[in-house]
Amino acid sequence: MERLGSDRFGGLCVSIGTGIISFLITWYLIPELSNLFLSANLAGKDLNKRLNDYRVPEGVGVIAGAIYLVCLFCIIPFYVLHSKDDVSSTMLTNLSLFLSALLSICCMILLGFTDDVLNLRWRHKLVLPTIASLPILMVYYVTYGNTYIVMPFPIPQLLNVNVFDLGFLYYVYMGMLAVFCTNAINILAGVNGVECGQSIVIALSVLLNSLINLGSECWSEHMFALYLVCPFIGVSCAVLYYNWYPSRVFVGDTFCYFAGMTFAVLGILGHFSKTMLMFFIPQIFNFVLSVPQLFHLVPCPRHRLPRLHPTEDVLVMSTVKFKRSDVGSLGRLCLFILPKMGLTKMTVDEEEQITITNLTILNVILRVMGNTHERTLTIYLLFLQVACSGVAFLIRYQLVHLFYDE
Amino acid sequence: MERLGSDRFGGLCVSIGTGIISFLITWYLIPELSNLFLSANLAGKDLNKRLNDYRVPEGVGVIAGAIYLVCLFCIIPFYVLHSKDDVSSTMLTNLSLFLSALLSICCMILLGFTDDVLNLRWRHKLVLPTIASLPILMVYYVTYGNTYIVMPFPIPQLLNVNVFDLGFLYYVYMGMLAVFCTNAINILAGVNGVECGQSIVIALSVLLNSLINLGSECWSEHMFALYLVCPFIGVSCAVLYYNWYPSRVFVGDTFCYFAGMTFAVLGILGHFSKTMLMFFIPQIFNFVLSVPQLFHLVPCPRHRLPRLHPTEDVLVMSTVKFKRSDVGSLGRLCLFILPKMGLTKMTVDEEEQITITNLTILNVILRVMGNTHERTLTIYLLFLQVACSGVAFLIRYQLVHLFYDE
Repeated sequence: MERLGSDRFGGLCVSIGTGIISFLITWYLIPELSNLFLSANLAGKDLNKRLNDYRVPEGVGVIAGAIYLVCLFCIIPFYVLHSKDDVSSTMLTNLSLFLSALLSICCMILLGFTDDVLNLRWRHKLVLPTIASLPILMVYYVTYGNTYIVMPFPIPQLLNVNVFDLGFLYYVYMGMLAVFCTNAINILAGVNGVECGQSIVIALSVLLNSLINLGSECWSEHMFALYLVCPFIGVSCAVLYYNWYPSRVFVGDTFCYFAGMTFAVLGILGHFSKTMLMFFIPQIFNFVLSVPQLFHLVPCPRHRLPRLHPTEDVLVMSTVKFKRSDVGSLGRLCLFILPKMGLTKMTVDEEEQITITNLTILNVILRVMGNTHERTLTIYLLFLQVACSGVAFLIRYQLVHLFYDE
Repeated sequence: MERLGSDRFGGLCVSIGTGIISFLITWYLIPELSNLFLSANLAGKDLNKRLNDYRVPEGVGVIAGAIYLVCLFCIIPFYVLHSKDDVSSTMLTNLSLFLSALLSICCMILLGFTDDVLNLRWRHKLVLPTIASLPILMVYYVTYGNTYIVMPFPIPQLLNVNVFDLGFLYYVYMGMLAVFCTNAINILAGVNGVECGQSIVIALSVLLNSLINLGSECWSEHMFALYLVCPFIGVSCAVLYYNWYPSRVFVGDTFCYFAGMTFAVLGILGHFSKTMLMFFIPQIFNFVLSVPQLFHLVPCPRHRLPRLHPTEDVLVMSTVKFKRSDVGSLGRLCLFILPKMGLTKMTVDEEEQITITNLTILNVILRVMGNTHERTLTIYLLFLQVACSGVAFLIRYQLVHLFYDE
């Protein structure tokens, strides 16, 4: 027991130390390299700034991702040391899973950066995370291969079924988790600091969850999570430093993919995918709210982010205008329900033209809290994310007893 | 024994099948995606064409690399099946090594593509392969960890030392092998089809070498090599189809890094790094010849590739002109020796201005064979590469008995 204790303490020290080092390297390198992005024409305009001909380097998430990978490469021997059991094959299984995690993340960064550079089409955004999740799925298959799920109350009592073998569907679930996590962060974006800020809050929640469980029987999975999440927090904090209002760099799709895939890998291989999904409550809400626009039940403009007020320095809800005839029956149902729930504001002019506010959580926040400064909007969202993580912990550690026996 | 036989046959079928599939996918996708490269401004002019305002997509090596990775992800379970022994821990060791190989290659493609997009500086070209080789070095360290080398004749007889522990230097050697392989291919470039063609010849040599050894005791390492090299040949042949004279796409640094890292990984983890280096004879010759220019002992222009003849459709040796005073004492030594060896042509005009042909193997070929068409020059180089591989096989399977006991 004492031996295990020193292993866990050592692992904790290494992961936190790597987090700090990765922060420092990223913090130093982003300004050094951002000129290269400008000269490569990887740059975008900030739509919510008055001086919007000022070009901001775009896709610097690739710097963060590359540094993250290098830091993790360097601590592979420590991970092997601190995750190991008496049995050598467990050590090798852990090593394989760790490598598959890095491989999925590396592949996602590569594909994300390719997307940033080549501006791939919308349908690719669903294919790329599926491709990148292949390594973890394959290695899961050849090592664990466990596809059973434990049934929650009241199923065991009613049907006398405690576990259920999902089989192939379990792999579909894991693949879809990767697609969801990456795109969920990608569509909750567009305001300075919001992509990176939400990722840090989720990552800190994972960190806390793993620290809580480091004393439990399944400490090995949580050591794995610590090794992956601490350097992620490090690089993300450095990115946030430059991406905070007013942004000096944009993170690009690369960062959203990188963050999303890291979370998917953590959830899948750390065996806490349900807890992970609970840390995504704001993203799930935003995704569900966005569905009518994403699937074109109601028209979807190119940019859905809030707009700068014409005279004051505050953001206002962005809107989309269309004719009633442009909308099918499902779209009309949405237009009937959503305004009633206060999730969008709809106006109809004398020519039967409909204007609704775009269906995003950022617009909902503006609707509830009133027009506000861009920085304040980000802070509101981050507070919401923290509050939702609090709810997630409450469910995970208190309400869970109602559904599962320990 | 029969069981092993069917494993090897199965592995051979899977790797060849994957090679064919990867060829077809790459062959289909390159023209589909090359417009995206043009619109992203990832394009270059072909310096050796009359109509040189025609822009060619640059860096399509990333397509080849991504498809290569996806194909290998999909065959991870087969590899585990075909590389396994009775002992489960051997299976897991093999899996870890396979994953580390993919991780190094994936990281190299990511860094190579970043280089193509951001145009990193020269010094980075040495750092990037070192970074990308970290996964294989780390996994080698935690699994094998064997740093002994077998001494060749006459050392065992003279000093009574059969093996020697290189220790840390072994890791330095492996890292340098990665740096060498990537850059060696990168500097033997600039003529349509030459980067890709040389890589295919080297890969075919590896394939042949592994087929020869598939019946030996160390078949497991060669099964590993087959799994990695067949899909590489597949994607490279598809790239060559479009990159052959007149090139419709350029491969970019991405491809050179990708190819070089694949060879380094094969050499290191397949335990035939010395044989691998022998397949690089033309590249080694080109590197050694280039040293005076690469290290600026004599002036080095931005492009050293052969030039198009002003009126005829043939390539001529490219030259560089400088003053005698621009050259230090080491440079003067080079200028004394190299022309005597017939490796460069030097002229001095009345104003003491020196003109030499650039120090590349392509110029040497032009000097020996005379001015020739671009396509023919590539074919000459590929013939030379094939001949050198023949020499390598001769040394490896005939002369080796003079130096090592079996």
